[in-house]
Amino acid sequence: MSGLASNLYIGLVHHPVYDKRREVVATAITNFDIHDIARCARTFGAGGFFIITPLESQIQLADRILRHWEEGVGSTYNPTRKESLSLVRVSRSIDEADREISELWQTKAKRIATGASSHPKSIDFGFLKKLLKEENTPFLILFGTGWGLTQEVKDSSDYVLAPIAGKGYNHLPVRSAVAIILDRLLGDRTS
Amino acid sequence: MSGLASNLYIGLVHHPVYDKRREVVATAITNFDIHDIARCARTFGAGGFFIITPLESQIQLADRILRHWEEGVGSTYNPTRKESLSLVRVSRSIDEADREISELWQTKAKRIATGASSHPKSIDFGFLKKLLKEENTPFLILFGTGWGLTQEVKDSSDYVLAPIAGKGYNHLPVRSAVAIILDRLLGDRTS
Repeated sequence: MSGLASNLYIGLVHHPVYDKRREVVATAITNFDIHDIARCARTFGAGGFFIITPLESQIQLADRILRHWEEGVGSTYNPTRKESLSLVRVSRSIDEADREISELWQTKAKRIATGASSHPKSIDFGFLKKLLKEENTPFLILFGTGWGLTQEVKDSSDYVLAPIAGKGYNHLPVRSAVAIILDRLLGDRTS
Repeated sequence: MSGLASNLYIGLVHHPVYDKRREVVATAITNFDIHDIARCARTFGAGGFFIITPLESQIQLADRILRHWEEGVGSTYNPTRKESLSLVRVSRSIDEADREISELWQTKAKRIATGASSHPKSIDFGFLKKLLKEENTPFLILFGTGWGLTQEVKDSSDYVLAPIAGKGYNHLPVRSAVAIILDRLLGDRTS
């Protein structure tokens, strides 16, 4: 564990999430999600970034993308992309990502769910920022693709983060939500 | 001008920007940029979002994307996308976008350049936030695609915004930079 890296880990969840009709599905991996979130994770010093999908074809796709930029022709074409992607791992489930982090830290990770609506156990950004600084445990913050994390994932998390308050419109792409939330939690706001 | 809309307008510049070799080029439009930035603009109540490109083929591409989601089958498939895209305009140059805003407000717009490095006339986020609130004039904040806005665009702007400080890595995608900067300038940080 690098002294610079934060105890905050990102999980991009492709299952279980809702689709448009609120049915539980596994979504497809989006190339832009991987690169944008990896660059944000690297910028703000997140501990790591887990792409979470149970689908074998999607796991292979993610591996292929990562290998292209880390070892293939992409690694010399775009070295800043290689640098950010070194933070990325692929996991088959939220539990698998959680186990990997917990083993690394030798202590149970705490889970934070995010979403566009509030939840009975919502905590605000200031509270979470304080928790991250004070507690010497890893945190796994979960972002849902598609139409968001299932109720069950929210209910079973240790915390649910308050939504980003928009002006009467709460339909941010997951990529933008991750950027904003990492900046609020880890960004240097003195400048 | 809606009472809710901010006096801050976004310009996504495809020319003049640098490429990898620091040559001045016109970059291609990226579909994800349009949707992500439009949704961020709508979330934080920006006055509008200008896609700036001098290339006729790119202007037609942008128009086609906008029409698909605003009038075509996309408008019923995904109405929140339609709502965000109503903020989007296409302009042939920074000057053309500037003129459109200045005419609407009947007063000269002020230009703010952004980028990953600091500039002799850099201002910080707190200062710009205060300016936006106090001055009853429109502001056009410019984001460079490719390898960023040219030196000339920065030098000729009224202000240059301080870069987003990363932990030794300053290679955010333009989509992520817009999300973070809009949140810092217009977001509701009380929650």
